[in-house]
Amino acid sequence: MKFSFKNDYSEGCHPNILQALLTYNEDQQPGYGEDQYSVRAKKLIQQKINNPHSDVYFVSGGTQANLIVISSILKPYQCVVSASTGHILNNETGAIEATGHKILGIEKEDGKLTPEDIIPVLESHKNVPHQVMPKLVYLSNSTELGTVYTLDELEKLSTFCKENNLYIFMDGARMGHGLTAETTDLTLEKVAQLTDVFYLGGTKNGALIGEAIVINNKELQQDFAFNIKQKGALLAKGRLLGIQFLELMKDDLYFELARHANRQAMKIKNALKERGVQFLSDTYTNQIFPVLSNSLIDKLSEKFEFYVWKKMDDDFSAIRLITSWNTADQPVEEFIEIINNEL
Amino acid sequence: MKFSFKNDYSEGCHPNILQALLTYNEDQQPGYGEDQYSVRAKKLIQQKINNPHSDVYFVSGGTQANLIVISSILKPYQCVVSASTGHILNNETGAIEATGHKILGIEKEDGKLTPEDIIPVLESHKNVPHQVMPKLVYLSNSTELGTVYTLDELEKLSTFCKENNLYIFMDGARMGHGLTAETTDLTLEKVAQLTDVFYLGGTKNGALIGEAIVINNKELQQDFAFNIKQKGALLAKGRLLGIQFLELMKDDLYFELARHANRQAMKIKNALKERGVQFLSDTYTNQIFPVLSNSLIDKLSEKFEFYVWKKMDDDFSAIRLITSWNTADQPVEEFIEIINNEL
Amino acid sequence: MKFSFKNDYSEGCHPNILQALLTYNEDQQPGYGEDQYSVRAKKLIQQKINNPHSDVYFVSGGTQANLIVISSILKPYQCVVSASTGHILNNETGAIEATGHKILGIEKEDGKLTPEDIIPVLESHKNVPHQVMPKLVYLSNSTELGTVYTLDELEKLSTFCKENNLYIFMDGARMGHGLTAETTDLTLEKVAQLTDVFYLGGTKNGALIGEAIVINNKELQQDFAFNIKQKGALLAKGRLLGIQFLELMKDDLYFELARHANRQAMKIKNALKERGVQFLSDTYTNQIFPVLSNSLIDKLSEKFEFYVWKKMDDDFSAIRLITSWNTADQPVEEFIEIINNEL
Amino acid sequence: MKFSFKNDYSEGCHPNILQALLTYNEDQQPGYGEDQYSVRAKKLIQQKINNPHSDVYFVSGGTQANLIVISSILKPYQCVVSASTGHILNNETGAIEATGHKILGIEKEDGKLTPEDIIPVLESHKNVPHQVMPKLVYLSNSTELGTVYTLDELEKLSTFCKENNLYIFMDGARMGHGLTAETTDLTLEKVAQLTDVFYLGGTKNGALIGEAIVINNKELQQDFAFNIKQKGALLAKGRLLGIQFLELMKDDLYFELARHANRQAMKIKNALKERGVQFLSDTYTNQIFPVLSNSLIDKLSEKFEFYVWKKMDDDFSAIRLITSWNTADQPVEEFIEIINNEL
Repeated sequence: MKFSFKNDYSEGCHPNILQALLTYNEDQQPGYGEDQYSVRAKKLIQQKINNPHSDVYFVSGGTQANLIVISSILKPYQCVVSASTGHILNNETGAIEATGHKILGIEKEDGKLTPEDIIPVLESHKNVPHQVMPKLVYLSNSTELGTVYTLDELEKLSTFCKENNLYIFMDGARMGHGLTAETTDLTLEKVAQLTDVFYLGGTKNGALIGEAIVINNKELQQDFAFNIKQKGALLAKGRLLGIQFLELMKDDLYFELARHANRQAMKIKNALKERGVQFLSDTYTNQIFPVLSNSLIDKLSEKFEFYVWKKMDDDFSAIRLITSWNTADQPVEEFIEIINNEL
Repeated sequence: MKFSFKNDYSEGCHPNILQALLTYNEDQQPGYGEDQYSVRAKKLIQQKINNPHSDVYFVSGGTQANLIVISSILKPYQCVVSASTGHILNNETGAIEATGHKILGIEKEDGKLTPEDIIPVLESHKNVPHQVMPKLVYLSNSTELGTVYTLDELEKLSTFCKENNLYIFMDGARMGHGLTAETTDLTLEKVAQLTDVFYLGGTKNGALIGEAIVINNKELQQDFAFNIKQKGALLAKGRLLGIQFLELMKDDLYFELARHANRQAMKIKNALKERGVQFLSDTYTNQIFPVLSNSLIDKLSEKFEFYVWKKMDDDFSAIRLITSWNTADQPVEEFIEIINNEL
Repeated sequence: MKFSFKNDYSEGCHPNILQALLTYNEDQQPGYGEDQYSVRAKKLIQQKINNPHSDVYFVSGGTQANLIVISSILKPYQCVVSASTGHILNNETGAIEATGHKILGIEKEDGKLTPEDIIPVLESHKNVPHQVMPKLVYLSNSTELGTVYTLDELEKLSTFCKENNLYIFMDGARMGHGLTAETTDLTLEKVAQLTDVFYLGGTKNGALIGEAIVINNKELQQDFAFNIKQKGALLAKGRLLGIQFLELMKDDLYFELARHANRQAMKIKNALKERGVQFLSDTYTNQIFPVLSNSLIDKLSEKFEFYVWKKMDDDFSAIRLITSWNTADQPVEEFIEIINNEL
Repeated sequence: MKFSFKNDYSEGCHPNILQALLTYNEDQQPGYGEDQYSVRAKKLIQQKINNPHSDVYFVSGGTQANLIVISSILKPYQCVVSASTGHILNNETGAIEATGHKILGIEKEDGKLTPEDIIPVLESHKNVPHQVMPKLVYLSNSTELGTVYTLDELEKLSTFCKENNLYIFMDGARMGHGLTAETTDLTLEKVAQLTDVFYLGGTKNGALIGEAIVINNKELQQDFAFNIKQKGALLAKGRLLGIQFLELMKDDLYFELARHANRQAMKIKNALKERGVQFLSDTYTNQIFPVLSNSLIDKLSEKFEFYVWKKMDDDFSAIRLITSWNTADQPVEEFIEIINNEL
């Protein structure tokens, strides 16, 4: 069996979670998120963001979180602004449009939005009522390209959006990785202060399933549970989500797992950099995009699985490597060894 | 702690499932349902229905299964016909209408549909193009009232629907209980032959989450996976669903668990019947609706949790008792003991 | 050619409208409802309801008005409450559900709702978040059965809805007929005070096309034009709607036409009553539903077109007769003559 | 009053239409498109395209036609491919997305699509089932930039689309202008042969309202009327649409009106060209986009209304001039006179 660097959801879950599922298995609990584990996990998250007034809801996955949040916020004629690399634009089978809302994509090399990117979109959508109304800015952190927002960048976006009557929604499928990157000073507490809604991704950070949606803006909190139920996302055994987030939030396991994933990716990145390898984007999270010769890619493919991301020219391509909460040292070292031998 | 007869999803899952999750935890597997456990579980289901040409997909819950199946089948102007007790009508926050489709409800005491019930609906929807077009018949088995279909009943419905160009979709959130009721001769193989689509519910029969959608009608199979993804139901770690159904399908654990739940309910039912108690409906599955005096209900409430379902008069009400795959003998016996003491 | 009593939209339009279209034909005007005729017609309507703060928009037809208004008001999980005879329930091909919203129907013989009818619907929809949330009460005036609301009835509904945080939307496809019925004391000004939104139907009262939506509730006014455009209802030549309503509102032509239609229907009704004929409902507008012998129906069918509405028994059926703004005396007198000869 | 070159819908309608409305006004006719005028107009269109098997439906406007056609054709996970100038992308308030479907835009200077433009879109949408499936190619003729398709161009697109299992839908809001441009050899009969669906725009070519949707592909014809009704587009007095198209189709009035509009625009274009003026795009229909100095634009604005379309630099801007079926010689000559005096 080849070791896979294809994604961060190819293994099961952190052992603490399985242990907790076992421990609590026989307890009878109310359904639909009213179980005591969910209640406690929500409290823990409120504590971590230092805001008891934020509402927390657990759902199964990222596309589900995105479509529920966006369709609950927007009026029929309002639309989303997103970087063109945004997961909602190209990787969710039109899930947002299926709820009736257009997404306006902005081309960005690094997958990150700034106020300057958004201004022309607002300017070109003023022909009332013949055009959709931009209303929600969708950010991913870390982004689909592995890049991250800094505190300053998010503060500027937040100020801009408030001035322009726009909401900020941060897709945090890889929030753990985004906030533990060595190059960012952004914290979870600040994310909660500077966004209207965000979510903490579990699936890509050691859970079996689960994303924790956090609604900070009070006006968006009302009746939110109806939306979860209507979209088929309210699990009868909500305990499955509660137990997992309880374990992930305990003793900061969530951030520890993300930090581990980032660290393993950085080991490979640094080894490649030492050999002069170029990268598609300069990332400090668990995704790296080195540009390698096709012969080296073939060599690596004998032992490892990964995606060939982009053809650069006839001889070189960028590959994508993703490490996870569970990536051990051995495959990382073996990968580096081949690099060192071949380059 | 009082013992709860409120529903069949208040405990965790069957120990075999937890054991399997533990065993396979470290294996790296492809995402989105391409893992080997899902592949094998699908094969097992095809074998049990004796039809290798049916397509099988796993999703998280019943509302999700209902909305994905129905919205994938119907054209915008087509609608669903359902008993008015149908789960999709009153208990899913308008999930079906949210995908654009009307549901026409038919009042039925026992929650079951017959061709005779459907004929007037067809007759009263012939004002083309000013009315929705009935196209899909939604059945639940066991029903929301605990009743079940027999082979003869389903055959008649199937013949009728074919003649009238209607699809049959069977909600099997409690399919296990429906097929193991002592009063039915319907089998899973026959269900697969006589319906266009159905699903096997895991959540209410020993799984943590999971329903297995089975598409028997070839013309409804095309591109179905797109619908699952678009509605946010395609789990990255599809292994969670695959592993569970693999365990449930092995050695007929699925039916054994359902039979156990039915048996526990029947013990209580028979004890009540012996004492002359009446029931709202005559059920042979894991849901019973005995009519009790309010004073007896108060007495039982000291030790047990259950829903008071319907007020009959000033002195009597029907309650709903649900047993599960995990309901042990002790609470059942204690419940019966109180009955025997009080009646 | 037989004369048709089938509906009130079988002729063209009032000659004043054609004359105005001719007079203004060469004028260049801004598109999309910004033309001076639309501006003036809106002002006239605001004057007639004595409320300059109501917003007025013109659209083409009733189903369009219904779906735009309802989908713009409701959040995804909210639903409509309607009499089961409501046009939106059975005669609009699921147009409301197609925008994502369930309609809860209430069986009423006379097609009219009272607070007492709505209370049980609210009571049975309290299982948050598992059921849709009733939020908008849909009334028709005159109703689909030709009946009308009185001032007292609408006041009680308005008070009740305010207390229960419900909106009232009045479908006025036949508002003219409803308000000019001899048995009502309701006025247009009162309708505007007691509803959140209503519309004035032109199509069934002498226009070629056109309904005037009037939004009285300020919180529902914001950005409404976007909804009209998005649903394909914003005519480039909005002048067509403006010119028509300008003519209809001038000198109360609108109400004069409706009064004429009612009067013609009442002539037939009174002739039938004198002969002892029974009616399905007791109406004072332009729709009547007399119960006649099948042989008389056959006799009348030789000279007139109308719908056989409901079979009463083997020998008798109710028919529906509708008169219009353009129904002359002659066909009415001929119809009455046959009645008088045959009964 | 300044003369307006802002658009082709600022006047009423061709006098023949008003005359016909007057002539037929008193006739009683069936509603909802069953009137004899609609029936005859549909036959006339079938004759003009030389295909009695195409279905014809009349609706009120372009956005309405677009959203009904597209939502009736596509399955929930399928999407539209359009030039980024496509009316559906930027000028219809997200009407298509509101029915659940994404539009993939392709940047094209001239607003026209070729197979070579579409290939990369197909190539980049093969990640089944994580992306929407391109299924319908949306073309406008004439385009939003005034350009037109030739027979050869449409044949190549048709062949390509058939090979790739894609539908072609041609927005013909300005079909008359597109087919009467002096530079095209495309005919209405060929359009019908080479597209699955198209429509003939009336609103921008002499009608008060109205577009004639023509469905050539048999598999897309089934039950189409339901879609029209459900979207609120089925006029009770369908005669209004039927009478107009009857007049427009008689003696080729439709094409005569378009040819007139084109001719007036060409007069201005040629005058400008003689003076060395540049154009944003090279058009032969009723829209031209000359690049003029700001001082000349100011001068022209004293007597004429038109849109300033695009700022070219500090001194020059492109303006958009649109002529109509009703643009007389006098304003055209006055405009040219100013040009000749000033340049």
